[in-house]
Amino acid sequence: MKKNFVIAIHGGAENQSREELGEAKEAAYQQGLENALMAGWHILEQGGSAIDAVEAAVKSMENNQLFNAGRGGSLAKDESIEFDAAIMDGKNMKAGAVSGVKHVKHPITLAKTIMQRSPHVLLTSIGAENFAMEQELEMKGDDYFKTEEKIKSLRKAKKKEKDELLKDTVGAVALDMDGNLAAATSTGGLENQYPGRVGDSPIIGSGTYANNEVVAVSCTGDGEGIMRANVAHELYALMKYKKLPLKEAAQEAMNVYKDRIEGDRNFIALDPQGNVEFSFETALMFRACKKNHDPTYLAIWKDDTGEWEQE
Amino acid sequence: MKKNFVIAIHGGAENQSREELGEAKEAAYQQGLENALMAGWHILEQGGSAIDAVEAAVKSMENNQLFNAGRGGSLAKDESIEFDAAIMDGKNMKAGAVSGVKHVKHPITLAKTIMQRSPHVLLTSIGAENFAMEQELEMKGDDYFKTEEKIKSLRKAKKKEKDELLKDTVGAVALDMDGNLAAATSTGGLENQYPGRVGDSPIIGSGTYANNEVVAVSCTGDGEGIMRANVAHELYALMKYKKLPLKEAAQEAMNVYKDRIEGDRNFIALDPQGNVEFSFETALMFRACKKNHDPTYLAIWKDDTGEWEQE
Repeated sequence: MKKNFVIAIHGGAENQSREELGEAKEAAYQQGLENALMAGWHILEQGGSAIDAVEAAVKSMENNQLFNAGRGGSLAKDESIEFDAAIMDGKNMKAGAVSGVKHVKHPITLAKTIMQRSPHVLLTSIGAENFAMEQELEMKGDDYFKTEEKIKSLRKAKKKEKDELLKDTVGAVALDMDGNLAAATSTGGLENQYPGRVGDSPIIGSGTYANNEVVAVSCTGDGEGIMRANVAHELYALMKYKKLPLKEAAQEAMNVYKDRIEGDRNFIALDPQGNVEFSFETALMFRACKKNHDPTYLAIWKDDTGEWEQE
Repeated sequence: MKKNFVIAIHGGAENQSREELGEAKEAAYQQGLENALMAGWHILEQGGSAIDAVEAAVKSMENNQLFNAGRGGSLAKDESIEFDAAIMDGKNMKAGAVSGVKHVKHPITLAKTIMQRSPHVLLTSIGAENFAMEQELEMKGDDYFKTEEKIKSLRKAKKKEKDELLKDTVGAVALDMDGNLAAATSTGGLENQYPGRVGDSPIIGSGTYANNEVVAVSCTGDGEGIMRANVAHELYALMKYKKLPLKEAAQEAMNVYKDRIEGDRNFIALDPQGNVEFSFETALMFRACKKNHDPTYLAIWKDDTGEWEQE
């Protein structure tokens, strides 16, 4: 029997219109998504693990100024850039996560290193930075992350000259040929955020979750609401205990407790059979997936059919 | 109809034997539990809210050197003391949490203040400390937290002269006369822990969870395992979607994924009908509860029937 391998990624979900985004930026996002997707897909295609594939896809987006993660991370109120990230291996349910860390080039690799080389799941702030240096991960000074464009954007945010703050997150979920699921999420946080604010991304069961038997999930959106609703674990619970298939479970997870928990919830999810869901309530989600050697699905807008010519 | 009000608390779960603990310390723990329980109970009895009751109970334990929270917090590897805490209001599913914060006298009050006066759920480290000072919460220097006894204990831990590290957590769950559930958890972390390590306590859905319709939970034990298994939210899911009553759901939540997730899981849980579960796999759990004007239940050992003469 031929074994499925699948990767799905997102580069955030926003309420920008097509006009606001502009054609040039749209094309750049498409290229960025394609690069990240293929970085993960090639690992899977060669028989590599889901955990390595999701790390590779997220690293690619962390290298890309366009995405609010790693190099492209948004500025907090005090012009600092703090990163949150998490990774989870569905095979053994091991997890690694990092919150409020600075200067790390690849927060997702730090999360993976915490999972693999420490007895801990979550390290925060200076302790996490210290661990990154002990493990000889690549560190970068402020000049790597802080651009004139971001400083201008923060200034606008403070003057409330912007309708929407940068709050994107990037993420990936994958299924490898051995039947293992994995999930990874990385973010530069919410623009103009209170220093030390942590969102859902590094929280296992909120922004990130993977379990071989049920589902792999990576969220983006209103971090506070996603944490209060435990969106990723809620999706798992709806599939495991309410026995809903992925599609119905995703719809229900988007709406549960919406009467008391505000904020947009958006996520990508992948089940053990290789089914993928992109669930979002924003105008757009930067998203892509590729199953086996099938054509790539790549889409931005809600009504996108997803056809995009691969080069 | 007379309305139930209930509070249940724990002061950690350990593998000490009766002999190791000693009579004097046992009596001191009993008194500490009684004080904390009654601090919360009096609020409920006067028609106060579940959220205020769990805060009061936890504050009482944070003031007590015996418990690994607040003043009694254990020392990390570098002799620093970092606190984690969370609180959740089952009425509106609002939550507040803090991780890796120093110098705050009452981490649980900081968590509650984040919930009530910030748009955020979780603040970490220096940012959290700054928020505490902006909100004029009580701050304390190292001399308040750091005792000769703790320094000696850390030294023993480093030389591996101890069988078990300090890793307790305190917590409370309550049901008020208006039918609202709440949960609160606070800890000084794991003795000799890597600085910046964060456990399950401040993670909504792992160490702390409350939802009026289903359950309120506060966990203690192996933080990494509790996070990977999302123990609090798993208990909620078993009750909500598998329709198990509290007792059976608690048993199942203790065991789910035990084949791949090691470490002890212990928790207290309370359902909307006022049923209380103390679930633990250690030799002891410092625990107590009081329902309406019924006699106080207070127990330490596994086989304790819980009768204890109130003064």
